[in-house]
Amino acid sequence: MSIFEDRFVTLAHGNGGRYMRELITEIFARHLHNPELDIGTDAAAITLPEGMVVMTTTDGFIVQPLEFPGGDIGSLCVHGTVNDLAVSGAKPLYLTLNAFIEEGFDLRTLDRLIQSLGKAAREAGVRVVAGDTKVVPRGHGGGLYLASTGIGVRKAGLKLGLPQIQTGDAILVSGPIGDHGIAVLLAREDFDLKGDVHSDNASVLPLTQALLDLPGLHFMRDPTRGGLAMVCNEIVQGAKAQIRLREEAIPVRGPVRSVCEILGYDPFYLACEGRVVAIMKANAAKEALAIWKALPGGKNAAIIGEVVSGRPRVILQTPIGGERTLEELEDDPLPRIC
Amino acid sequence: MSIFEDRFVTLAHGNGGRYMRELITEIFARHLHNPELDIGTDAAAITLPEGMVVMTTTDGFIVQPLEFPGGDIGSLCVHGTVNDLAVSGAKPLYLTLNAFIEEGFDLRTLDRLIQSLGKAAREAGVRVVAGDTKVVPRGHGGGLYLASTGIGVRKAGLKLGLPQIQTGDAILVSGPIGDHGIAVLLAREDFDLKGDVHSDNASVLPLTQALLDLPGLHFMRDPTRGGLAMVCNEIVQGAKAQIRLREEAIPVRGPVRSVCEILGYDPFYLACEGRVVAIMKANAAKEALAIWKALPGGKNAAIIGEVVSGRPRVILQTPIGGERTLEELEDDPLPRIC
Repeated sequence: MSIFEDRFVTLAHGNGGRYMRELITEIFARHLHNPELDIGTDAAAITLPEGMVVMTTTDGFIVQPLEFPGGDIGSLCVHGTVNDLAVSGAKPLYLTLNAFIEEGFDLRTLDRLIQSLGKAAREAGVRVVAGDTKVVPRGHGGGLYLASTGIGVRKAGLKLGLPQIQTGDAILVSGPIGDHGIAVLLAREDFDLKGDVHSDNASVLPLTQALLDLPGLHFMRDPTRGGLAMVCNEIVQGAKAQIRLREEAIPVRGPVRSVCEILGYDPFYLACEGRVVAIMKANAAKEALAIWKALPGGKNAAIIGEVVSGRPRVILQTPIGGERTLEELEDDPLPRIC
Repeated sequence: MSIFEDRFVTLAHGNGGRYMRELITEIFARHLHNPELDIGTDAAAITLPEGMVVMTTTDGFIVQPLEFPGGDIGSLCVHGTVNDLAVSGAKPLYLTLNAFIEEGFDLRTLDRLIQSLGKAAREAGVRVVAGDTKVVPRGHGGGLYLASTGIGVRKAGLKLGLPQIQTGDAILVSGPIGDHGIAVLLAREDFDLKGDVHSDNASVLPLTQALLDLPGLHFMRDPTRGGLAMVCNEIVQGAKAQIRLREEAIPVRGPVRSVCEILGYDPFYLACEGRVVAIMKANAAKEALAIWKALPGGKNAAIIGEVVSGRPRVILQTPIGGERTLEELEDDPLPRIC
């Protein structure tokens, strides 16, 4: 008997018995199978190359709607986790997966989302090695929430982080900002707007790996919740420096800019899910930019500003010569984008 | 300003901005701090001893109510994850933590639950090295869901698992079964029953580590969802053998037995959260039992049955000489116990 003879997830799919085994076998194991995934055990052995630093990260996903132009919660789960490792300079190797499924959720939708997750994992070169599913009663979940932990390795001796940042460093971004936030917003029924915006949802691993051997790379981060403005605010607080961004240098797609103007959003606070912000010695920035521009995910990369001494603030220089401060985000105009 | 000047979690606590930073600093980082937890970065470096096999596991937690006699979702999250590693023969070293918090959740309750999680982690000798929080809108969550991934190490060459199980092996359980399931049930308002049952919620690491050097240890598992009956069903299916359990040998506390009789539950299907089922060579079983009985969590350990050849079934021999089959669980009488 196939699990798809039922149409919807029931509480019995979460009870540790036959229905749960079928759910795991016919959906999760089918799409995520690899030599290290053994659904008959609660813990998996993993192999890590010797002499490397082991890195780990974890991320939860509650995006609404679950599917949007350019992605879905499944691929987002992989990319969000992979990207946190990638910007730390690591190569992601393994993922674990937690699914919180709401009673009544459509089994075919679940199947499609986990298939997408499996595809994204294979493309990013990571293996799902352990998983857990829980079913919550109707009205106690948003269809599907996912959590994922990533394990990867990076070269010993690699120095990346806030303490490495120096006055005079250049700030780069790997592509246009805000696509993900606006794509998710337009996919919501409560906004009666149409627009041709696709999420930038993608693994940034090729972009981060390409810069690792450059001398002068000091810091990388993916601008997700809170966008470019929040990453820059973290940097100025952590590095006790000031950031000056040139507004005209920051890539923002036309349709994203238009939606922001209509709805009053600020693109600098919108989430990306496939972009990298890098901070590096100014004399290495041009080479980094050329490397990124030659990669598929980096065509529109740009040098957008610099780290200067001064009070820890993020200052945006407008094209007409004005200045405004990008304050730390307080109230979120756009929740549940990841 | 303290986060506790607000009383409830708002969507702004999940937006990547100042409120989220305060939530993480004043609750999560305060209770979970350790040298390897750095809330200023998205990925953490961890140190693993050389020459060991790295093991990983993951688990989600949706228990209702969030606090019950003998535990809460915080300590349960640590013990559930630690125990999955422990029964694989590993020593847990690191945890990652995902929290899905419902808008409107009481911040003081959250504080108490994360404090409990931190205490359980310290007692089990594990460090929380990475975390993520998401806030879901009111009506889209059950107050608090947690997910945790554990990373640990075990000796190379250790052979534990279903393929090791042999006909003639003895089956041991480390203590009374069903305490957790009944404790959670009695804590629910929809059951108007009172009883002095505490969850067995605990780390089983001392119990599992104590058996690792015994020759003849073949398999360990913690009987959580689906209880002893489900663990035995997994074994007979995986090992292509039969299990015979002696009902009178299986420890079940009096109050647990009483509640089961009143409500028609079968204790063999009730979840434990601090017990181990071990399968080992019969001639090593007495020594293992003596070792367990000398440990705080193993006072009431017992040899409860054996693995025999025959059709893969779990057979319970009743005290009066009868037999019944413990079938694989289909419909769950008691959801959301972990």
